[in-house]
Amino acid sequence: MTHYDLAIIGTGSGNSLVTPDFDDKRVAVIERATFGGTCLNVGCIPTKMFVYAAEVAETVRGASKYGIDARIDDVRWRDIRDRVFGRIDPIAEGGRDYRVNGPNTTAYLGSARFTGPHSLIVDVAGEEHEVTADQIVIATGARPVIPEVIRASGVRYYTNDDVMRLDELPASMVILGGGFIASEFAHVFSALGVRVSIVTRGPAMLRAEDETVSEAFTREAQRRWDVHLSASVTGAREEGGEVVLTCADGEQVRGELLLVATGREPVSADLNLPAAGVETHVDGRVKVDAYGRTTAAGVWSLGDASSAYQLKHVANHEARIVAHNLAHPDDLRAFDHRFVPSAVFTDPQIASVGLTEREAEEAGAKLTVKVQYFGDTAYGWAMEDTSSFLKLIADRRTGRLLGAHIMGPFASSLIQPLIQAMSFEQDARTLARGQYWIHPALAEVVENALLGLEFD
Amino acid sequence: MTHYDLAIIGTGSGNSLVTPDFDDKRVAVIERATFGGTCLNVGCIPTKMFVYAAEVAETVRGASKYGIDARIDDVRWRDIRDRVFGRIDPIAEGGRDYRVNGPNTTAYLGSARFTGPHSLIVDVAGEEHEVTADQIVIATGARPVIPEVIRASGVRYYTNDDVMRLDELPASMVILGGGFIASEFAHVFSALGVRVSIVTRGPAMLRAEDETVSEAFTREAQRRWDVHLSASVTGAREEGGEVVLTCADGEQVRGELLLVATGREPVSADLNLPAAGVETHVDGRVKVDAYGRTTAAGVWSLGDASSAYQLKHVANHEARIVAHNLAHPDDLRAFDHRFVPSAVFTDPQIASVGLTEREAEEAGAKLTVKVQYFGDTAYGWAMEDTSSFLKLIADRRTGRLLGAHIMGPFASSLIQPLIQAMSFEQDARTLARGQYWIHPALAEVVENALLGLEFD
Repeated sequence: MTHYDLAIIGTGSGNSLVTPDFDDKRVAVIERATFGGTCLNVGCIPTKMFVYAAEVAETVRGASKYGIDARIDDVRWRDIRDRVFGRIDPIAEGGRDYRVNGPNTTAYLGSARFTGPHSLIVDVAGEEHEVTADQIVIATGARPVIPEVIRASGVRYYTNDDVMRLDELPASMVILGGGFIASEFAHVFSALGVRVSIVTRGPAMLRAEDETVSEAFTREAQRRWDVHLSASVTGAREEGGEVVLTCADGEQVRGELLLVATGREPVSADLNLPAAGVETHVDGRVKVDAYGRTTAAGVWSLGDASSAYQLKHVANHEARIVAHNLAHPDDLRAFDHRFVPSAVFTDPQIASVGLTEREAEEAGAKLTVKVQYFGDTAYGWAMEDTSSFLKLIADRRTGRLLGAHIMGPFASSLIQPLIQAMSFEQDARTLARGQYWIHPALAEVVENALLGLEFD
Repeated sequence: MTHYDLAIIGTGSGNSLVTPDFDDKRVAVIERATFGGTCLNVGCIPTKMFVYAAEVAETVRGASKYGIDARIDDVRWRDIRDRVFGRIDPIAEGGRDYRVNGPNTTAYLGSARFTGPHSLIVDVAGEEHEVTADQIVIATGARPVIPEVIRASGVRYYTNDDVMRLDELPASMVILGGGFIASEFAHVFSALGVRVSIVTRGPAMLRAEDETVSEAFTREAQRRWDVHLSASVTGAREEGGEVVLTCADGEQVRGELLLVATGREPVSADLNLPAAGVETHVDGRVKVDAYGRTTAAGVWSLGDASSAYQLKHVANHEARIVAHNLAHPDDLRAFDHRFVPSAVFTDPQIASVGLTEREAEEAGAKLTVKVQYFGDTAYGWAMEDTSSFLKLIADRRTGRLLGAHIMGPFASSLIQPLIQAMSFEQDARTLARGQYWIHPALAEVVENALLGLEFD
């Protein structure tokens, strides 16, 4: 048995907990898979590298609209893939080496389960190690959910864990799901030449977004991909080198490859949490308070394992808060989940912060809503844009911004002034006129949307 | 003689002065050229439309870096040109018709000169009209400066006024000047296939920018174009279908077409300002106070005719202020020129706000400076970016941001959170950590730069 001051399970955002505050402490870092977690290895980072290549391909295809006749001669999939993982894999390896050889860290490359609130068994390649610690942090992240009908069918399927490492692009792909992972991969693979079908249970794509965004994106998706909405999959089989999904209405959707993107669940079930007195929500998320404390004293959790937000910037924020709280028990800081933005790097790009219009209505505010089209600003003209927009929702009595939703190029950065305004409680009118907006930058979309709001 | 409540000379930003406050007033609008002014007709708007096409062409050329082999088959110059002016020209015409037929406006399509502080002669196609007004606004803008050596040589030259309307792209072009107009057109024409030479007096391109930006952009320019720095032109001639510039050191630079982009001067000399008692600065700018008032009672000025900033967003701001002041003499508002941003839509794009490092040093602040490369953030990786950066300059004692300078994609919008922070006096540390920055959006460049500043 080895005792530590701190044990961390999971090396995504959890790995950043080892701050200088722990320089003279003994820290155990436990990881059963690849160092760096979802974001680095199978999430944000690699997907955005593929997304950028996809955007380049789409720009070539759409160039004639601007008077540039261009064509794609070849998509070098293996080169794209190797460029991505040639950068990422060494980082994950470096992260592992750094912990394995760290001056005050011990790395356990295996699976942990609790035996009490301060004790774990870690299975490293079949050998069990007993680890005890004053404080333990659960930062185990999330993993893809596989619907039972797919699992039971025995068909070969891919998830975000492995679809980016294919040796060859398939001619066609069926994507099961209609959320952000499905939307990003549909963009990537279709831009690179794969015929994409989407099968989703919901009546629209991206249903977590504001309804105007969800509807508009669904129309865009239907224009580009073979989209099956409100589709309940009742069977799956392999046939002639393809996977065939059967839906409840009898429709069959087929493709060379099946990508399952039906959401991600927190990794908590394998941890034997009851032994530690750590409780979970019905969806498997570890219950935490505003400081990151679980229901067991000395046990903390952060990121996808416990957070209501499966977002790297939230996990990073929670890790900073928990790192502080671990070292400063008498000066606890709380998570700030007031204005959590998110983005979907599909095509067109989508970003949002705050309430959807429906949520704002349900909250009882008297609203003013402005939908500002990019095409009605100078830079939008230049882009010949006809579909991109920013939707702003504000309280018409107080001038306070309640929500912002963008579908269009660069949405994930264009939204920042609005995140800033909401986070620092800046009034919409002052925001529009109390600063300059460069003419004719795309940011004028934000200025014009703000000016379009009507206040009492 | 016709008397008006208000006479406006110039229909760029001046045209927006006719607010509802003047619904029951008589307004004269005087324009000797195209309605809409520089921005709409020969400046921001059309240039950005060409710039966007240029960016598309450059994306095609650079696609192989991302594993997409692509090529340009044809650049349809006339289609590009006609798309641009097919949108713009009708707007200028519509603006003229609206004033010609406006319920309370009279349009004089001619040149004005003062005969007193409240009186003008307007020459409309040789016929002189006497116009008097309680208040007169000088909003005559600016026009290209043509160096005497060029003018005297008699060679055919182009400026931003006409170079966008060419019938054919030349094979090669010499651009005289090294500022933002030269840099934008060099990008546009070289991207569309023209061989570009630049001849500039200064030792670097974009010398008004922060020195780090100016140096970095000069290197980029030298990589792409035939750049002649510190070059003093002593002669110009036409020879074999080309224009040849001779420099003081004997070097000769030649191209099929000469574009003069050596700056723009306020249009004030033709107005007979002394007759009205309106004084000008030595550079020809009309002298105004913080409210837009000239040295003559009842005479106002705004925009390029008087402003220290030749920027449309500044002219628009000044027009809003003057419009208010014209109608509310007892409640004058002042121009806000505290944090005026600007952008150069060249390649890479450039944006800046606040002080350069040298200016900040001269102001005596104790500085903290951070240069954050795009390539050291996740989205920068995805873009395979190796040269783009954000330079932040802050006061290391107060935490106040003093200047921000970006060279890289989307600079003109990426800078907005920094303009916002400076305008609303938000502290750099709070700005970084008091809001979320979407991972892995390009805006993380801003977050990381802020975190890289070191404060006392």
